[in-house]
Amino acid sequence: MSKRIGVIGGGQLARMMIVPAIHLGLELKVLAEAEGSPATVAATMVGDYNQLDVVREFAKTVDVITFDHEHVPLSVLRTLEQEGISVQPPSAALAFAQNKLHMRQRLTELGLPMPAWAEIKTAEQLERFIAENGGVAILKTPIGGYDGKGVRVVRTSADAAEWLSAEGLAKVGGSLLAEEKVDFVRELAQLSARTPSGEFKAWPLVQTVQQDGVCAEVLAPAPGASEEILARTAEIARGVAEGLGVTGVLAVEMFEARDGRLIINELAMRPHNSGHFSIEGSVTSQFEQHLRAVSDLPLGSTASRAAHAVMINLLGVDDENDFVRNYAKAMKDQPEAKLHVYGKSARKGRKMGHVTVVHEDSSQALAVARAAAEILRHGN
Amino acid sequence: MSKRIGVIGGGQLARMMIVPAIHLGLELKVLAEAEGSPATVAATMVGDYNQLDVVREFAKTVDVITFDHEHVPLSVLRTLEQEGISVQPPSAALAFAQNKLHMRQRLTELGLPMPAWAEIKTAEQLERFIAENGGVAILKTPIGGYDGKGVRVVRTSADAAEWLSAEGLAKVGGSLLAEEKVDFVRELAQLSARTPSGEFKAWPLVQTVQQDGVCAEVLAPAPGASEEILARTAEIARGVAEGLGVTGVLAVEMFEARDGRLIINELAMRPHNSGHFSIEGSVTSQFEQHLRAVSDLPLGSTASRAAHAVMINLLGVDDENDFVRNYAKAMKDQPEAKLHVYGKSARKGRKMGHVTVVHEDSSQALAVARAAAEILRHGN
Repeated sequence: MSKRIGVIGGGQLARMMIVPAIHLGLELKVLAEAEGSPATVAATMVGDYNQLDVVREFAKTVDVITFDHEHVPLSVLRTLEQEGISVQPPSAALAFAQNKLHMRQRLTELGLPMPAWAEIKTAEQLERFIAENGGVAILKTPIGGYDGKGVRVVRTSADAAEWLSAEGLAKVGGSLLAEEKVDFVRELAQLSARTPSGEFKAWPLVQTVQQDGVCAEVLAPAPGASEEILARTAEIARGVAEGLGVTGVLAVEMFEARDGRLIINELAMRPHNSGHFSIEGSVTSQFEQHLRAVSDLPLGSTASRAAHAVMINLLGVDDENDFVRNYAKAMKDQPEAKLHVYGKSARKGRKMGHVTVVHEDSSQALAVARAAAEILRHGN
Repeated sequence: MSKRIGVIGGGQLARMMIVPAIHLGLELKVLAEAEGSPATVAATMVGDYNQLDVVREFAKTVDVITFDHEHVPLSVLRTLEQEGISVQPPSAALAFAQNKLHMRQRLTELGLPMPAWAEIKTAEQLERFIAENGGVAILKTPIGGYDGKGVRVVRTSADAAEWLSAEGLAKVGGSLLAEEKVDFVRELAQLSARTPSGEFKAWPLVQTVQQDGVCAEVLAPAPGASEEILARTAEIARGVAEGLGVTGVLAVEMFEARDGRLIINELAMRPHNSGHFSIEGSVTSQFEQHLRAVSDLPLGSTASRAAHAVMINLLGVDDENDFVRNYAKAMKDQPEAKLHVYGKSARKGRKMGHVTVVHEDSSQALAVARAAAEILRHGN
């Protein structure tokens, strides 16, 4: 059993992992990118995770390495693994998180539900894909994109001329990924966890509401999802986790298409924004489960603590409001709301915190969470 | 509003305050007694809290001072207060926590339910009290006692001869406290919180089960307590908090006497072992509420998250077992149990952690918590 867990990356996900480490009495160390990161209280080292020497030095202080993000170079992780260090999820799994084209290829081989997609190296290939898919495509850079970056809707290859140039293609590994623009009725996320020993547990499916490509609200469980859908999405997550060899928490973002298909959109091999509800909403939070999983400890119950949970993101409204300054009114008006602020300086659009409300009544949960978020954003 | 909270004392209570500080984005600093304390992750300073200079230096780094324990000398705290530092609870309230005789005197003046009691300076006074109270008394040192220390059952003054000697009395401030040995059916604890602005909230009354003078189990809410009793104990807590000027979390330990009386036994002016259930059992934990209260922020909801919560203490079984080493089996067998370990080295009898289970069924909660605790203690 591993007791000392090392997290690469000092963002809010690492920050929220500190909580179960404190409760469980596990030692958590963080390799942060910079001083003053959200996870600073557990930051035992500050350095560049792209540098093998830095990561190797950090790895010496812990029993297992895990992540706040998926950006550590595979070459660094493979070297650590060759040196006998436990990396969870392993580099072989992260390879799919770091390259959306490889992810689509492998998930297709596994028979998991995909949109139509194609590897694109030329304008002609893109034009053909667009023509075959209703005159529109989602074009993605296979590497480096997140929260809507590296993604665009194209109706002609001219919409992506610079991505298709020799320099543009060279930057992203030589090809682009074109995907069907799914006509979806809503977006869903299936959170799960898997241990190196192979234990797997899923939380109830959630609905995510995106605004401008960023998660705005999460409804747990997904409203109106039948037992059959809940079972199917949990099995999809199991297929992804086992098929790609993922350990720790895995978030599978999905579309519910108008024609009834469930289609895998994105993967995250770490705790994920769509799982923040689980801190208060579940017997075991995604952060505790991640620590258990990467340490190869048995997984905790993913049962819900109440009929409904609603999570609303606090995105920076300007360069001044840290949300804490509006606590007095928010706490007074909404004593049931659970407020989370990540200790980041204010910046418009930045993920700076979130609000969760659990309740037996879904509309009440939503109303309280929205009211609290609104006060935190605008002071009234 | 205060954002930087300083906690004097680095024990498990300070450790568990770190969690809501992380969630709320409040800055928590700890003045620890020694390196490697349970709250070490937030320990910004190590030093002797009996030294004014040490505490004053620590106080400069925060906006409000609060406590992991009640042992900081009043003279130190009064000096800080005179220098304009916010101390919560204030020294005027802590004076009653530090001296059980003064506590009895003041609570009696307030008309709150007391056992028969008397200040004792001589063997004759003690003999008289024993004779008037059924041939037995609980004798306490007014200062310095906790978890059964500084308390003994006496049937004759000879049972406390050394306490009654001139040297013995000098050590404890010149007098002892004799109390009626209450014939109780069970012990209860009423947890509450109060802000400097005067807002007050109580959690549901709990039953505490003591073994060898140490809390072993807590049942929340107290089984079979009527609405009338719940209202009465909450009002007793309000009377204590307002009467003594307590801020932050207050635990009022009570006896339910065989004759039906509710009698105040002990007070704790800080988060308390009887309130650990609230981490999972309540919308707002005692640790979050304490941070809100001492920062004079509005208090969170004290509503229960489930019908029942059971908390069982993990007392050290020997000098080897850190409880973490039995996690694999405990987590596998009891995935609903919430495990808490404080990062202390193993020592027989030491409070090293606790287990909480919340459940709609009280006997199920108790069974799961006991099973998990038993595995953690003995590995099976």
